[in-house]
Amino acid sequence: MIKVGIVGGTGYTGVELLRLLAAHPNVELTAITSRKEDGMPVADMFPSLRGVVSLAFSAPEKARLTECDVVFFATPHGVAMAQARELLAAGVKVIDLAADFRLKDTAVFEKWYGMPHSCPDILEEAVYGLAEVNRDAIAKARIIGLPGCYPTSMQLGYAPLLAQGKALVNEAMLIADCKSGVSGAGRKAEVHTLLAEASDNFKAYGVKGHRHLPETTQGLEAIAGRRIGLTFVPHLVPMIRGIHSTLYAHILPEARDTDFQALYEKHYEGERFVDVMPPGSHPETRSVRASNKLRIAVHRPGGGDLLVILVVEDNLVKGAAGQGVQCMNIMFGLEESAGLMHVPVLP
Amino acid sequence: MIKVGIVGGTGYTGVELLRLLAAHPNVELTAITSRKEDGMPVADMFPSLRGVVSLAFSAPEKARLTECDVVFFATPHGVAMAQARELLAAGVKVIDLAADFRLKDTAVFEKWYGMPHSCPDILEEAVYGLAEVNRDAIAKARIIGLPGCYPTSMQLGYAPLLAQGKALVNEAMLIADCKSGVSGAGRKAEVHTLLAEASDNFKAYGVKGHRHLPETTQGLEAIAGRRIGLTFVPHLVPMIRGIHSTLYAHILPEARDTDFQALYEKHYEGERFVDVMPPGSHPETRSVRASNKLRIAVHRPGGGDLLVILVVEDNLVKGAAGQGVQCMNIMFGLEESAGLMHVPVLP
Amino acid sequence: MIKVGIVGGTGYTGVELLRLLAAHPNVELTAITSRKEDGMPVADMFPSLRGVVSLAFSAPEKARLTECDVVFFATPHGVAMAQARELLAAGVKVIDLAADFRLKDTAVFEKWYGMPHSCPDILEEAVYGLAEVNRDAIAKARIIGLPGCYPTSMQLGYAPLLAQGKALVNEAMLIADCKSGVSGAGRKAEVHTLLAEASDNFKAYGVKGHRHLPETTQGLEAIAGRRIGLTFVPHLVPMIRGIHSTLYAHILPEARDTDFQALYEKHYEGERFVDVMPPGSHPETRSVRASNKLRIAVHRPGGGDLLVILVVEDNLVKGAAGQGVQCMNIMFGLEESAGLMHVPVLP
Amino acid sequence: MIKVGIVGGTGYTGVELLRLLAAHPNVELTAITSRKEDGMPVADMFPSLRGVVSLAFSAPEKARLTECDVVFFATPHGVAMAQARELLAAGVKVIDLAADFRLKDTAVFEKWYGMPHSCPDILEEAVYGLAEVNRDAIAKARIIGLPGCYPTSMQLGYAPLLAQGKALVNEAMLIADCKSGVSGAGRKAEVHTLLAEASDNFKAYGVKGHRHLPETTQGLEAIAGRRIGLTFVPHLVPMIRGIHSTLYAHILPEARDTDFQALYEKHYEGERFVDVMPPGSHPETRSVRASNKLRIAVHRPGGGDLLVILVVEDNLVKGAAGQGVQCMNIMFGLEESAGLMHVPVLP
Repeated sequence: MIKVGIVGGTGYTGVELLRLLAAHPNVELTAITSRKEDGMPVADMFPSLRGVVSLAFSAPEKARLTECDVVFFATPHGVAMAQARELLAAGVKVIDLAADFRLKDTAVFEKWYGMPHSCPDILEEAVYGLAEVNRDAIAKARIIGLPGCYPTSMQLGYAPLLAQGKALVNEAMLIADCKSGVSGAGRKAEVHTLLAEASDNFKAYGVKGHRHLPETTQGLEAIAGRRIGLTFVPHLVPMIRGIHSTLYAHILPEARDTDFQALYEKHYEGERFVDVMPPGSHPETRSVRASNKLRIAVHRPGGGDLLVILVVEDNLVKGAAGQGVQCMNIMFGLEESAGLMHVPVLP
Repeated sequence: MIKVGIVGGTGYTGVELLRLLAAHPNVELTAITSRKEDGMPVADMFPSLRGVVSLAFSAPEKARLTECDVVFFATPHGVAMAQARELLAAGVKVIDLAADFRLKDTAVFEKWYGMPHSCPDILEEAVYGLAEVNRDAIAKARIIGLPGCYPTSMQLGYAPLLAQGKALVNEAMLIADCKSGVSGAGRKAEVHTLLAEASDNFKAYGVKGHRHLPETTQGLEAIAGRRIGLTFVPHLVPMIRGIHSTLYAHILPEARDTDFQALYEKHYEGERFVDVMPPGSHPETRSVRASNKLRIAVHRPGGGDLLVILVVEDNLVKGAAGQGVQCMNIMFGLEESAGLMHVPVLP
Repeated sequence: MIKVGIVGGTGYTGVELLRLLAAHPNVELTAITSRKEDGMPVADMFPSLRGVVSLAFSAPEKARLTECDVVFFATPHGVAMAQARELLAAGVKVIDLAADFRLKDTAVFEKWYGMPHSCPDILEEAVYGLAEVNRDAIAKARIIGLPGCYPTSMQLGYAPLLAQGKALVNEAMLIADCKSGVSGAGRKAEVHTLLAEASDNFKAYGVKGHRHLPETTQGLEAIAGRRIGLTFVPHLVPMIRGIHSTLYAHILPEARDTDFQALYEKHYEGERFVDVMPPGSHPETRSVRASNKLRIAVHRPGGGDLLVILVVEDNLVKGAAGQGVQCMNIMFGLEESAGLMHVPVLP
Repeated sequence: MIKVGIVGGTGYTGVELLRLLAAHPNVELTAITSRKEDGMPVADMFPSLRGVVSLAFSAPEKARLTECDVVFFATPHGVAMAQARELLAAGVKVIDLAADFRLKDTAVFEKWYGMPHSCPDILEEAVYGLAEVNRDAIAKARIIGLPGCYPTSMQLGYAPLLAQGKALVNEAMLIADCKSGVSGAGRKAEVHTLLAEASDNFKAYGVKGHRHLPETTQGLEAIAGRRIGLTFVPHLVPMIRGIHSTLYAHILPEARDTDFQALYEKHYEGERFVDVMPPGSHPETRSVRASNKLRIAVHRPGGGDLLVILVVEDNLVKGAAGQGVQCMNIMFGLEESAGLMHVPVLP
């Protein structure tokens, strides 16, 4: 059994980790920290876990995290980088669900997250935890920076197009029109995500710029081995879970004869968690609700030169906690799907 | 034109007052205060009011409220009682949407609201602004304590039963099972009313005790002229606006032959804002959405001895701002329905 | 492995059975019938099952249901009773999620379901599948009539009160104010359950009478061994899954000293799927979402003589498919919780 | 007073017309037809109209529509063209909310709506009722084909860009990523718009092709006086009302110095129902809920060469019934905003 600790278990990615790990056949939940809730049984905060998780939150200094095999950080940005060195030194693997180990350029990190990076050497070592792209590196990693929720869907949606030897689409003019449920904003008391504000409503936000843009650009450029240009427009959907990314790409004249459906199917052949749907499909977010699946549909409206790629994922699973467990499975040599075969909840 | 000021216009009852008053034919909006947002155009906070309200928020001391004819308080409990004396002295009428002037017994007020009452003399003078019950007193009042949202629905729902010379139902065993949309919790940043917490969910709350219980009991006893006993169980509905109260009353043996439908119709004959629906109706909250209407249906399941009264209202209109405008109309001798004839928005 | 067939798999209880059974360690899904969708892969209708269920719907006559060990009917009322005899004769056990085998009195069945009962002898044999009440009989049963969703919550909510040797509450004056998500209305094209009709809205329905009243009364009388009187008022909540029942009972003078919390805890001691929460709790429907749990909280507001029992369940799991699997487990001597240990999905 | 008839008043655009027209100061509602509901009071179907609309539905042949001044068709496609000739001959003006008089090319109409056009001569005369574009022609029109909901937002969103003498953006590569609430699908009993299917969910649909594409292309080409190329991807949002269109356009090199914010503000100067918001704004659909306003924000992310135009409208008002009333006001020489000054309902 792998001993697992969770730092910061009171947010949505934390409780989702608990849901997944509590039922994982190879995991022993060892500690979950929260300074504020020290001593409170986890199930008192999340009654859904009554009878499932018997742990109480403990203050970080009491949690003996160095005795774990792996520690997940489901914390605000900046926490993981403050604690990673000690854990790694103790031989503990680290999986960060926040942004501390995503952006390789510390200047870019500082610009978007408003704080200097405190351990650039560890950042350099850290592996970006997008399993379908970096599986081998993840297997050998000591520390993982997990992708953001939007970046997961954009990268896995564009990857088959960009991973080819030569450009098939105008890679300078990619447009990602993304829509997310409000759990993506976290379990924070804020006015704009109140039900009375956000339900029966729809809006874009962050059109001027969003933290997930540099992360996605970095990831897509790594996949392509070329510079790319991306416009990313996020929107808030009045639903709890789910991201739907509508990705646009202009097909280059020389690539007009490409069978893009076949390209996508081949690219993801054998992947357990990526489902390329049949031509003409319109994936729904609920078709992956509470599961680690990501579904993709490839469209070419009117047979023209614009590709429209539809991608859905559960932002808390494949876009966060589930992807973390997937990485853990890879890192510890388990079956990659261990503890992750939940059937999506529909309706 | 009546000069109207609003103290505290950044919450839901405040913005609803603005929606109603901006279109009221006899009103001139003169000032709206918010210390925190001093100088900010109201329409910057609420884009729905762009082109409708040109006022900016102003700090209270700049607002010259004493030049108004009437001032509404859409504030937290405790604010109105601190400012009422000065306004009344200047000849300004006061309508408080909070609880400062609802409970006649200051000990009860202090118990439920956790603060002493600072002006018992004004409290004594204040009229409880339930128009269909206290119309004459409202017409002569200088200061109004507006009913809470739940109490409005419970009192108007039970009133025809209790207003008779003799008891028709077991008045010691009334049960009100009430359900409210989340706007009733106000525009406050809190975790439990986030969309990700409150949508696709249903729960009771405050079963042990709720502030609206003593207020409703006081009101029902005033209507009946007798002691009554009420159990009140509020629930949170994943919707924005609306209250649905399901009221239970055990019919006394001697009242078994009463035609309760006729009793209700007669009681509310001529009322513009109370609609007694035909027998067998199930009023929906959306049938009064964004309007000052309250609808009632009278049921006697299986022809038995339990009355089931269904009541719906929009908690922000008839349960708050609309009722306030209705009182203002009465106080200033206007047509009672002036500015209040909005057709409910459906769907 | 138990060979399982499902008749009528295109509704919500059908797809929920598929979700649960596809991941059940002791089950082999053998056939799923739908005359209308004959030949269509199940996963084409429900993309959430892509990669999970490889079966196609088949017309009933092709499905070879008599080779199954057990057949679930997730069909409209009347279908199971037409096919049960042949299956039982072939040694196949039957679990009906519809109402055909719930009501023991065929006259009552005919009155509420508008059709005569075609096999009263089988009805007599059938066991009512409320596991926590009828476990021993279920273990020996060939055919199960599963409780309705509302009746499950009302019966398990009232059972500890009524199962005592003498009455503790006024059993003639029980009131159940119940609220259900719209999946309870089934996957049928109807105007009143459209999102544009039912969201941001709340209403009661069926106050005059509802099919689940006679079923619940029958069940409660069986538990009590005495006549009881129940008023049942259902309401429609703008959410997908979940039932919240608020149950009222007047405590008899001689029972005033009863420790009701202790009574409930003792009654459900050892039950895997019934959780009596600590005093003062307000269970939320989401705390059982997508799981077979039912949670109960016991309140006595103001220490008075009215008990308020709060009950939540997922109507599609503990109120339907999950309870069916629970019965199957009991019938086949499996661990009762096999395939049913899903952690509730929150948020 | 203008005598108004409505053909087909049982859908969402019909009931919205009733809401608007019942409170219109210059209108007398004369007849509302529904063959199926002949004799039923309108307020029995829509309790929101109790006390507001006293008319009953009548069968078309009894409705004496030829005595009206204007008749609105809130009907399925094909109804208006069957009745328009008779009404026009009687001197009655016609406003069609369906598609019969939108597409000028009858072959295109037949392709997308699956029926031949029965009165091409009237189609030729009909004016496309997009008030901000065709105001003068509307003033003289006898018959109006009202724009669809999506086309209204796309055309008013792109119009300032395309209405210039020379191209500013790549007009062959426009992309409109649009999101609509489910009331856009109409008040029809269908499975995919049930609350249990469509809430807590998000999906694209009709990516292969949608009826509103040829209509919008026709409109944009009329505005530009040039051919344009548009990709239109509609999505379904789990909300009742509202459309949010996210419009993309690649700025041509020679137009890089354009002040697009100023361009938009100038274009819509003086318009009562189009609000160009300040730079950096993210309009929300609720900011126009239940009102005839359309709000636009102009973005240029990162100062680059891609314009992102955000447009919100209420699909039932500016996208349907409100636009119809606006056209009626113009046709009859009334104040264009008569009966249309509803303040948006927020929250």
